[in-house]
Amino acid sequence: MSEVRRVRVALAGYGTVGRALHELFREQGETLRQRHNVDFHLVGVARRDRIASNPKGLPVGPANALPWHSGTLIELLGEVEADVLVEASPTNLKTGQPALGYVRTALKDKLSVVLANKGPLVFAYRELEDRARQVGVPLRFEATVAGCIPTFNAARHALAGNPIRRIDGVLNGTTNFILTRMTDERSDFDRALREAQARGYAEADPSADVDGLDSAAKILILANALLGLNVTLDKVHVEGIRNVSRQAVEVAAAHGLHLKLVAEAERDGTVRVAPRLVRKGDAIDVRGILNAVRFTTELAGPITHVGRGAGGRATAAALLSDLLDIFGAPNGAPAKVQKE
Amino acid sequence: MSEVRRVRVALAGYGTVGRALHELFREQGETLRQRHNVDFHLVGVARRDRIASNPKGLPVGPANALPWHSGTLIELLGEVEADVLVEASPTNLKTGQPALGYVRTALKDKLSVVLANKGPLVFAYRELEDRARQVGVPLRFEATVAGCIPTFNAARHALAGNPIRRIDGVLNGTTNFILTRMTDERSDFDRALREAQARGYAEADPSADVDGLDSAAKILILANALLGLNVTLDKVHVEGIRNVSRQAVEVAAAHGLHLKLVAEAERDGTVRVAPRLVRKGDAIDVRGILNAVRFTTELAGPITHVGRGAGGRATAAALLSDLLDIFGAPNGAPAKVQKE
Repeated sequence: MSEVRRVRVALAGYGTVGRALHELFREQGETLRQRHNVDFHLVGVARRDRIASNPKGLPVGPANALPWHSGTLIELLGEVEADVLVEASPTNLKTGQPALGYVRTALKDKLSVVLANKGPLVFAYRELEDRARQVGVPLRFEATVAGCIPTFNAARHALAGNPIRRIDGVLNGTTNFILTRMTDERSDFDRALREAQARGYAEADPSADVDGLDSAAKILILANALLGLNVTLDKVHVEGIRNVSRQAVEVAAAHGLHLKLVAEAERDGTVRVAPRLVRKGDAIDVRGILNAVRFTTELAGPITHVGRGAGGRATAAALLSDLLDIFGAPNGAPAKVQKE
Repeated sequence: MSEVRRVRVALAGYGTVGRALHELFREQGETLRQRHNVDFHLVGVARRDRIASNPKGLPVGPANALPWHSGTLIELLGEVEADVLVEASPTNLKTGQPALGYVRTALKDKLSVVLANKGPLVFAYRELEDRARQVGVPLRFEATVAGCIPTFNAARHALAGNPIRRIDGVLNGTTNFILTRMTDERSDFDRALREAQARGYAEADPSADVDGLDSAAKILILANALLGLNVTLDKVHVEGIRNVSRQAVEVAAAHGLHLKLVAEAERDGTVRVAPRLVRKGDAIDVRGILNAVRFTTELAGPITHVGRGAGGRATAAALLSDLLDIFGAPNGAPAKVQKE
């Protein structure tokens, strides 16, 4: 058994996802050491204008027990040495900031970067990919799309050598919950939205979800990363579900169809989000808050992945899968043989 | 850009899957060199009691154009040097032979092993895993279950750090086609079976499929590889679909349920295959020849993968994904950073 590798993690954002990741480091610690030969230590965390750090690792517990002092993530990276930046601060789909600046700084410092935050990729996907390649560090973002459903890592490994021609899917759980309620309960949009808010699936300001912007950001990242496109948000045709009427949903259902907010991307550069009719029983005809991602592949036709698209622990698990893909070394039979 | 690595492949079996893989080496050659820094050469192939080899690589083309001479795979491995054995000879679920012997020989010679053939794993999963670990070479088998649907490589990479608690799914396309026809067309079993045979989905002797043995072999491999079990075929409860009546299918459908041949495995060691009622619209309620594999994970609940479970090119694509996972080195931003 080879030596356990100690990995120093700097974290931007200490909300539901960030805290869940910190807890996973402890909760899964023994498994990670035994099965992946790696030990993750959260050496620093930045939250808005406050930071906390400890080169030996910060303790898991209530957020207010951490040794907070004023500062930014950039200052944090000067204060404590890290191997990787995990970006899990709130997503800003208007500018990508301040996360975009954090990621640029981390790459300049040759840190690996793992993102749960879509913002930087939406505004600077190609730039960040190029910078990461130039400095020779990994840039990963499994957690940005569809929570823990394998998308990027599945494409990278399980579908390696089987080119993807087209991607479509249901990428936003909030709108899918609303449309499912409109179908099942004959609710109108406003009532279904209030119910989604009451259950905590929709925010007080639901526009990023219901107007399609969240789905647009996700399909943009999928298209750029997996279809090799170089699309920006202004090139994505986006239509949300505010104008979907109860009547439209009912007429569709009577014809064996479900209305879904579908995100699609083609290799020719077409990327769009719009309400679409999906045949009942279709692989992307998922219900409630579920997400579905379908890859249409050259060698094996359509392959669809279905699961929960959100949740702190599910998203943290996706971050962890990226961290393990970068830093983990399976015990015993090596995942990779020695390269010449 | 680093140097392209030349990988010498020895292949057991030159049927639909083996030939499709040989074609993929040529067809995807440019992509493999550019994107994965690797060049695969088929240096030897064994088919029943005949072998053909060329250290510079055998040409793609009609099988009878190869320089066949009499011999076995064991003799082939003495005749030509190889880096990896790809086992794609016909599956024998009674003894696992002769493939099991081939795999043992390859591991003794420290060759990497990639399997499309379930036989060796059904009879000696733990032994082969242990041998591979001892000699330090990879043993891979993505192609043995559900064609190109990401299962083992998804679990290895995309679900790393998110333990799987339970696996269930529809793992046999032939029986699923038959049950789908019985539901949709009100066929009885015999008529639906004849239709499956006419379409080439079922063999002349359909017993391995309809009696559940093929599904049992697949769930056994999933259980041993992903749940850490050590189950043998005699410990798997297997019930096929021969006794499923048209009436049973109709009564189920009237109650919003579909009869499926479901394979299941739990961490406590329970592994079984039997006809089960699945709610219409359930993630594993797939139609026709589709397969579905559902992982119930600790951190993200159920994640389901749906796609075609068979076909020469889809299975060859799964073999290729294993080969790339072992020998490929992504260009540019490295998938793995340097290990200390």
